[in-house]
Amino acid sequence: MITRMSSLFLRTLREDPADAEVPSHRLLVRAGYVRRVAPGGYTWLPLGLRVLRNIEAVVREEMGAIGAQEIQFPALLPKEPYEATGRWTEYGDSVFRLKDRKGADYLLGPTHEELFTLTVKGEYSSYKDYPVILYQIQTKYRDEARPRAGILRGREFVMKDSYSFDLDDAGLARSYQLHRDAYIKIFDRLGLDYVIVAAMSGAMGGSASEEFLAVAPTGEDTYVRSTESDYAANVEAVTTPAPPPQPLDGRPEAQVHHTPNTPTIETLVDFLNHEADLGRVFTAADTLKNVMVKVRQPGQTEWRLLGVGVPGDREVDMKRLEASLEPAEVSLLDDADFAAHPFLVKGYIGPGALAANGVRYVVDPRVVPGTAWVTGADKVDHHVVDLLCGRDFTPDGTIEAAEVREGDPSPDGRGTLVAARGIEIGHIFQLGRKYTDAFEVDALGPDAKPVRITMGSYGVGVSRLVAAIAEQHHDELGLVWPRAVAPADVHVVIAGKDDAVAEGGERIAAELSARGVRVLLDDRKATPGVKFADAELVGVPTIVVVGRGLAKGVVEIKDRRTGDREEVPVDDVIEHLVTLVGR
Amino acid sequence: MITRMSSLFLRTLREDPADAEVPSHRLLVRAGYVRRVAPGGYTWLPLGLRVLRNIEAVVREEMGAIGAQEIQFPALLPKEPYEATGRWTEYGDSVFRLKDRKGADYLLGPTHEELFTLTVKGEYSSYKDYPVILYQIQTKYRDEARPRAGILRGREFVMKDSYSFDLDDAGLARSYQLHRDAYIKIFDRLGLDYVIVAAMSGAMGGSASEEFLAVAPTGEDTYVRSTESDYAANVEAVTTPAPPPQPLDGRPEAQVHHTPNTPTIETLVDFLNHEADLGRVFTAADTLKNVMVKVRQPGQTEWRLLGVGVPGDREVDMKRLEASLEPAEVSLLDDADFAAHPFLVKGYIGPGALAANGVRYVVDPRVVPGTAWVTGADKVDHHVVDLLCGRDFTPDGTIEAAEVREGDPSPDGRGTLVAARGIEIGHIFQLGRKYTDAFEVDALGPDAKPVRITMGSYGVGVSRLVAAIAEQHHDELGLVWPRAVAPADVHVVIAGKDDAVAEGGERIAAELSARGVRVLLDDRKATPGVKFADAELVGVPTIVVVGRGLAKGVVEIKDRRTGDREEVPVDDVIEHLVTLVGR
Repeated sequence: MITRMSSLFLRTLREDPADAEVPSHRLLVRAGYVRRVAPGGYTWLPLGLRVLRNIEAVVREEMGAIGAQEIQFPALLPKEPYEATGRWTEYGDSVFRLKDRKGADYLLGPTHEELFTLTVKGEYSSYKDYPVILYQIQTKYRDEARPRAGILRGREFVMKDSYSFDLDDAGLARSYQLHRDAYIKIFDRLGLDYVIVAAMSGAMGGSASEEFLAVAPTGEDTYVRSTESDYAANVEAVTTPAPPPQPLDGRPEAQVHHTPNTPTIETLVDFLNHEADLGRVFTAADTLKNVMVKVRQPGQTEWRLLGVGVPGDREVDMKRLEASLEPAEVSLLDDADFAAHPFLVKGYIGPGALAANGVRYVVDPRVVPGTAWVTGADKVDHHVVDLLCGRDFTPDGTIEAAEVREGDPSPDGRGTLVAARGIEIGHIFQLGRKYTDAFEVDALGPDAKPVRITMGSYGVGVSRLVAAIAEQHHDELGLVWPRAVAPADVHVVIAGKDDAVAEGGERIAAELSARGVRVLLDDRKATPGVKFADAELVGVPTIVVVGRGLAKGVVEIKDRRTGDREEVPVDDVIEHLVTLVGR
Repeated sequence: MITRMSSLFLRTLREDPADAEVPSHRLLVRAGYVRRVAPGGYTWLPLGLRVLRNIEAVVREEMGAIGAQEIQFPALLPKEPYEATGRWTEYGDSVFRLKDRKGADYLLGPTHEELFTLTVKGEYSSYKDYPVILYQIQTKYRDEARPRAGILRGREFVMKDSYSFDLDDAGLARSYQLHRDAYIKIFDRLGLDYVIVAAMSGAMGGSASEEFLAVAPTGEDTYVRSTESDYAANVEAVTTPAPPPQPLDGRPEAQVHHTPNTPTIETLVDFLNHEADLGRVFTAADTLKNVMVKVRQPGQTEWRLLGVGVPGDREVDMKRLEASLEPAEVSLLDDADFAAHPFLVKGYIGPGALAANGVRYVVDPRVVPGTAWVTGADKVDHHVVDLLCGRDFTPDGTIEAAEVREGDPSPDGRGTLVAARGIEIGHIFQLGRKYTDAFEVDALGPDAKPVRITMGSYGVGVSRLVAAIAEQHHDELGLVWPRAVAPADVHVVIAGKDDAVAEGGERIAAELSARGVRVLLDDRKATPGVKFADAELVGVPTIVVVGRGLAKGVVEIKDRRTGDREEVPVDDVIEHLVTLVGR
């Protein structure tokens, strides 16, 4: 196939678009791949659509290889299934809703769990029908509060979403692993540098979950990785190693001290070290900070108090706390809450008053039996020292709520954690029975008893991948596509006004095309300078310059990525290129 | 590729769906190609999606062959461009509208004229850039009042829409012809029996326009065709041949007669022939019926009167009248209108009072100079006889408003018209400058003067084609796909529990697949009867039965369409089938 620049619907831009924050956005617009229509809504121009389709083809191949079957749902979906699972309200503002002419409620599908579940229920009934994996590559909609970065976070975007349906947990684990392996193949083929991070489940409920993040400083997702192992995780998913418990016997007694004006950890530590004269040096890590929140379970109206104890040298990370408590809602206490519960002495809260008043109290995993703490004595200007966990107080459980810091030990015991940023390109997730419970999806087992089906949910951000690849594959001159996704295999530049040069370029393009090579042919009436600049910007991996050298029987082949140039005899150029591009 | 029925996400149904009105709907549901999700919203199951994709591939190839370039717009579109052209309001209830979280107005694109126009304006500026043809294959939305017949008229559907942009009318005519030829190739390749009918422009404004209708008694569109030529047209587009004018000299004088109680054509003719004693026999065709309507131009508030004169043996066809007056609104007069204009004597209106009161008066093309008519005398119970067109009255013009009847002469002068029904599968349309005027799309000409671009608009109902093909290609047992769109080339049925039979079927499937033949392999544990019934229902064009004959070294090949069966030696079957399916 030959695509002629002289007629291609492509106009490159010399200037960056005003709203572009990240390189992929800047370059995809400048190189004429996409155009903005509305906030988070983009048009795919011919070259952009080709890259998108190339990615879709890779995804489709690898999904087919694990036996997944492609189907396609509408994007315009009725309210009822989403009401049955509670997501009609849970989605809040982030879903586009509309009414038809008869006033019936619809939404534009953000994900299709409900529809996949109902469809399998509609067709299948026996255990012999299972397992099955279904997927679609579909346009999806989310009313993002801040659509940003071009197609990195759009409001209309293309996703591959698949769902596995299994009879038991072992089957689900197999389907999950099949997807994990398929995703590795997909992202490897697409030339991406990515990490697989342990992830929390998000709003979808369930258990095991991992995200595929394309490594990019412009990414929206923060994750941590180990300096010495391949451990990587979302901050929300980092688990805190618990130290070994310590003996309770023979430890100093807990003692209440008058600690005037010490409502913060900083003032407390300062007082202990300079005023209290306890013969020891205290650090913030020796104190136990008790943060009060209120929690409301889904579908309930009542808020319940919860005390969260973390070492005083760390803040509570609300995102980690929320993730730990999902699907419940969490909120900090306000003044009215404190007024309603006078046993909560602000700045001096301790485990004692919580236990005495039946308030649930959970602690950081570092707070193990035998650890001694300085903490509030439930009385203004008083703290207790040497309060021993397991002797003087017994938490109701542990919770991942304390902030994660660079330098923290890696949960796998190897190395320490460092922070990095990435773009979420894939998500695999053992969803379990949330949706099959909601819609009562059972298979009739071999013993004629119903078996509740268990599900996995797996997504690839197909249109986002175009941007993620561009983030990783560009330089100051433009895009540098990996072969698997490039809009053409070879960019043939006719550099010169000479008829012989034009004919030479045309002949090479025709011969390449006949060999199955996809050629972008710059046959425009433009200066070589303009053509070279556009070739760098557009980013086809191999550039062939047909110019003055032709008279000496050579053309130049340039590697877009390395910039390496090579003169090749015109008689050898077809074989050379066919081999190079692997057609 | 081998698709195994044992794992395929397909469950055929023995019963017709309750809401199915037409064969395609009934069979596509029963054979497991589609499932209903909402009114006018369908899920494509694996086999259905394959047929849809096969059709898309044919459309894409033929569009590429005429140099059309594929792009893709969002479906979720901002209000502003549609407001600029007035279509935001014109669409009325037939478009899905919604607001985003900030309250901004959006619609789900029913067609994309505005976006294509703005995109071309954004990229192109010189006459050297033109012509260009752009297209997309995209999911579109219309809030149909009565979604019906499965995917024949959905609310979410797939369309190919393309637009041509030319510098002048000759260019537009070329682009139009390119599309016409491409559509002929597409519909021929898809095995469709179709007609190309002259069409009116519909709500989009413009001039030349033709529709491609798949011939089907279940179709929603009525058209007429000639008994003796290939003339075919929408009823709205039929033109009435005008008879030659007749001499005015030496004709009888017009005479007013007292015709008591003759407000209708029937009572008038009856009176003339039985009471008036005029020495002649009159028929309804000798009378001129003057129908009063009021007309309002777009954007105006004022209604203006219009008199429409048609031969008394025909009714005014309001659809034809409306099409003739587009884009104006038309309404019949009500009692208040008659009261406001006392010169209109109901039942006895004649051209005289209209002319005297400055009311525009248009007539059927059969009313030519020199034709004599019996018509109202603008006085209760009085008519005028021998009122001669061109002598006693002069109409302000002609109009296509009279009903078209079977037996009318064909406008091309060959044969007469008969009525038929079809499904609209394509529409080509010389749109002109409506949208380029709205958005001021000019090219800078060679003389540095701006040239207003002219557009064509061309649509193919891609998802509707699946149903249209099914309407034409089925029998009482099920679907009968043409090769070009079939979900597989060959359906191999393992008919028997014997291991040798199963192995034989598997081997044949594997060898066919290796030769590039797409095989649907029925490897289920089911009776041959169930398998045969499903094979007929699913409709793959060639069925291979591997059964008892295998022991004698033969398999049976059945042509799904003709029902012809043939025993083929198992050693020859691969070559035989590869040749048959043309792989």
